[in-house]
Formats: sequence, structure tokens, C-alpha cells
Amino acid sequence: MSPIYWYDNQFLPAEAVRVSPQDRGYYFGDGVYEVYRVYGGRLFETGLHYERLARSAAGVKLALPFGEAELEGVLTELVLRNEVREGTVYLQITRGVAPRNHLFPADAQPMAMAYCNEVARPVTTMEAGIKTITLEDTRWLHCDYKTLNLLANVLAKQEAAERGAGDAILRRGDIVTESSASNVMIVKDGRILTHPANNLILHGVTRAVSLRLARAEDIRAEERPFTVDELLAADEAFVTGTTVEVTPIVSVDGRPIGSGEPGPVTRRLQRAFARAIGLES
Amino acid sequence: MSPIYWYDNQFLPAEAVRVSPQDRGYYFGDGVYEVYRVYGGRLFETGLHYERLARSAAGVKLALPFGEAELEGVLTELVLRNEVREGTVYLQITRGVAPRNHLFPADAQPMAMAYCNEVARPVTTMEAGIKTITLEDTRWLHCDYKTLNLLANVLAKQEAAERGAGDAILRRGDIVTESSASNVMIVKDGRILTHPANNLILHGVTRAVSLRLARAEDIRAEERPFTVDELLAADEAFVTGTTVEVTPIVSVDGRPIGSGEPGPVTRRLQRAFARAIGLES
Repeated sequence: MSPIYWYDNQFLPAEAVRVSPQDRGYYFGDGVYEVYRVYGGRLFETGLHYERLARSAAGVKLALPFGEAELEGVLTELVLRNEVREGTVYLQITRGVAPRNHLFPADAQPMAMAYCNEVARPVTTMEAGIKTITLEDTRWLHCDYKTLNLLANVLAKQEAAERGAGDAILRRGDIVTESSASNVMIVKDGRILTHPANNLILHGVTRAVSLRLARAEDIRAEERPFTVDELLAADEAFVTGTTVEVTPIVSVDGRPIGSGEPGPVTRRLQRAFARAIGLES
Repeated sequence: MSPIYWYDNQFLPAEAVRVSPQDRGYYFGDGVYEVYRVYGGRLFETGLHYERLARSAAGVKLALPFGEAELEGVLTELVLRNEVREGTVYLQITRGVAPRNHLFPADAQPMAMAYCNEVARPVTTMEAGIKTITLEDTRWLHCDYKTLNLLANVLAKQEAAERGAGDAILRRGDIVTESSASNVMIVKDGRILTHPANNLILHGVTRAVSLRLARAEDIRAEERPFTVDELLAADEAFVTGTTVEVTPIVSVDGRPIGSGEPGPVTRRLQRAFARAIGLES
């Protein structure tokens, strides 16, 4: 079966989707996006995703062409049409098709596109953990907007891979912000620390879910900036994200974190997360 | 006549160009670009543009799919086919078509696209000058790469227009970097000052041409950072860019620069520029 896209307000086979070279997404990256998780055929945490999407869109002054209920209806139908049980939905909205000009076009309509992928949970890396490197965070000062301007993230992730690591942890000076495509948390003396949700990081849905689950588990969790030295001296560290869920970090720049194995707080959070998505009781 | 594009190594009518939704330019802004000026049917300063394009591509680790002579041949043919006498050529190269993944695709080929526009010289604003506002420079730390991640520039230009200004001048703290889509120069005591060509600004072709022309005119020109206060206290100020050429700045945040009229050094440079493109003797 050919994948079905939602594009320009229509459900279409993938091969029928053809983007205009005058789409502002193509020449300015002028748009916002979300990646949703699908578990058991159902979209996960749609409310948190919509809230963030609305915030990103407002941040870049893009009027969303749909409300929350309408979008959820469309994406639910997309998942059904594609018969996805475990996977992701990618959604992006650009400022539309117009001749290239930095100024917002007077009459263009936002252009939305969504499609699904079958994606298994990353059980191997969730079990074993990943190696990481640190890199200077060179991104712009609105990392809280989830936009299509992702070149800095792409370059960081690629450099990590070329150096044999699973992800790159970004730092502004001494402060750890997040990783190339996930949020970063550390555990010290039983307490979770993670960067505050300000303009320097993406406000991850899995970050919010993880903090909520931690608190429900009576694990103390604090949102405050921490340094690279605190990361290296941490008992445990992990990344959170829609596709990586809760994945342990076992080393940073070749130095083991804690015992060099995924730690007990990380494991508790992984189990709590699995229960939250209905996979363990 | 329908405009002719160069896309995927073919000359095609505009309406035949259809971009894949899986083009990394569309979902990551993963590409680089150039805008060339065409004067009298001929491409201007192709050598400087190619040098910068090669630098941008190397910066984002994208292998250009052509050499300098081949590209110049293609763009020259594009200008001829479109019968453009006074205008621009837009060229972009993305990392190609591949399923969405931050990691570079193993087998995708870079995707190049170019097209022309008839664009008159902006004689009205070059004569009268423009009002500007200042805004915090929120961009990433590789503004020297001319990439498709232009959302910060778009938002700055739009805010300028909404506040009745022709451009936004960007500052990092107290330091003036450049404007939303041009370089900024000031004149004090007969000497031109402009931000050094480092990672915080785009290395403008018109900036380089202007500095060359200034030196040929025996106008002293220095590349060093200057502050917003120095801008406000300047005798003259102007922006340089491929489409704006040398355009006077007559006010910043509502405060006049110098006399509030385009100044004599700016005028000399404009005349030298006009001679350089063969329009005055």
C-alpha cells in the first residue's frame, strides 16, 4: 500500500504530493512542525503537542489553519488510513506559497502536510544506553519554537555519528542546554535536574511527561541550568524525546557517567513511561 | 513566456517544477543559496559568489554537484533563456531527497534549483534612503554560511515593515552585526566602518565590492565591530547588498543619522558602484 499523506487539505498517495518550489518552507525554512508518537494505533499526548504547536506558530507569527479538534480528527484519520500501530506522525505547516520575499506574503495560505511512519520503540538503545559527545550550541535564541530551521541540529547529530556517538549534547559556554534532538536530564543524589523550559531549549513533550512521571514516583525533579562538569559528575544521565522516549546516556566525550551503565532512577522512569503508554502494568 | 527554471539538472518551465516533500530543504532547511545580480543581461561578480557558495557548502558539509565553470555556464544559459536584462538569479542547493532523518543520507544527491527574476534597481530608496529600527540579533552562530535557515531574518524584516521601517539593524548586545538581509556600514570623520567578516555576519558580495571601491576612491575603510551608539553618532550610514546595492540609512529607531539625509561618502560610493556596473562614466 502506498503511504497516504495529508497535504493541502487532502488525503493523497505519497507520489501525488508535489511541493511548489515557491513554498516558503523550501527556501526560508519558514514553518513549524511536530512529531507525534503513535502507540497501539493511537496518538500520544495530542494536547501537549497542540499546545506547543500553537506556541511555535505564535512565536513565528504564523496563523494555524485549523483548531485543535479539527487537527486531531485529521491526524487520527491519517493514522487509520495508513494502518499504523506503532510509529510516528510528522506534521509541518509552512507560511505558504509565494514569490521569494522576506516580508510575509499578503495573500498566501499556510500549507500543512502530515504523514506517518512505522517506527518501533528503540529497545536496544533504551536498554544499553548511548555514548554522547559535547558540542557548542550554535543555534539561534528561539530554540523553544519548533521550526523547520534545523541545520544546526542536523550538523550536530551528524558530527556525533561520525565520532561514533549516538547523540551530541549541546552546551552554551559551560551550561548544558539539550541534545541535537532531545532534552537532557541528569540524576545526582536521587534528584533529577534538567534545563528550564526557556528560549534556549525545545519544550519537549517527553520532557514534560517524564517530569510528571518522576513526580508521581516521588523522585525529586528540578528545572535549573547545570554545567558540563555537573553532567560529568552525575550519577546518571538520560535523554528524553518522542522517538527515543527515555534513553540512558552511558558516556560523555569518552568518560563514563556514574557506573557507565544505565542507573536505577533512569530505569524507574523507563518503567513508569512504559506503564503510561500501556505496555507494562 | 513562462519562466524557465533550472531544476534537477534540467531546464524546465516553472509549472513543471515539483519538489518532493522528502527534499531535506523542505523539512530541515538543509541547503545553501546565492542571489546573483544581472546587469545588462550579464551576471555580476560570479567569482565572488562562487567562492562564497563553496564556503557555505563546505561549512554545512554539502558537496556541490558542479564546479565553478559548469555553474557559470548553466546560469548564463538560464539568463539567456529567460531574456533577463536587469534582474536577479536565485540559486539554491539542498542535501537532496531522502526520508526524514537528521543524519546525512547515504545515497541522496544534492538538488540544485535556479531561476531568474526581472528586478529593477531600487532607485527610489537608493536616492531617498531608508528608515531602520534596531533588533536583537537572535540568529545562530554561523551567519557566514548562506543557508536556507532564514526564519530569524524573515521575522526581523517583517517587524521592521510593521513598524514603518525599510530594514531592521541587528545587534548582539551593543555590537551592530548587519541588517536583516544586508550588511551595514557607517561613516565617521570620512572613514567607513563595518563589522569584520567573521561568523556573525554574512560575507556580502556587495560588501566586498563596496570596500574595494572605497579603497579605490581613497576613502579609508576599516573592518571592526562598532556599537549602536557609534551608529547613532555616525555622520552617515548605509546598507550594502545584491538587490539594495548601496542604500542610505537616514534614521535608526526614529533618530536621524547625521543630517538625516544621505551623506557625501555614501553618494560617492553609489556613483562608484554605478560606474562599476557600467551605468555611469
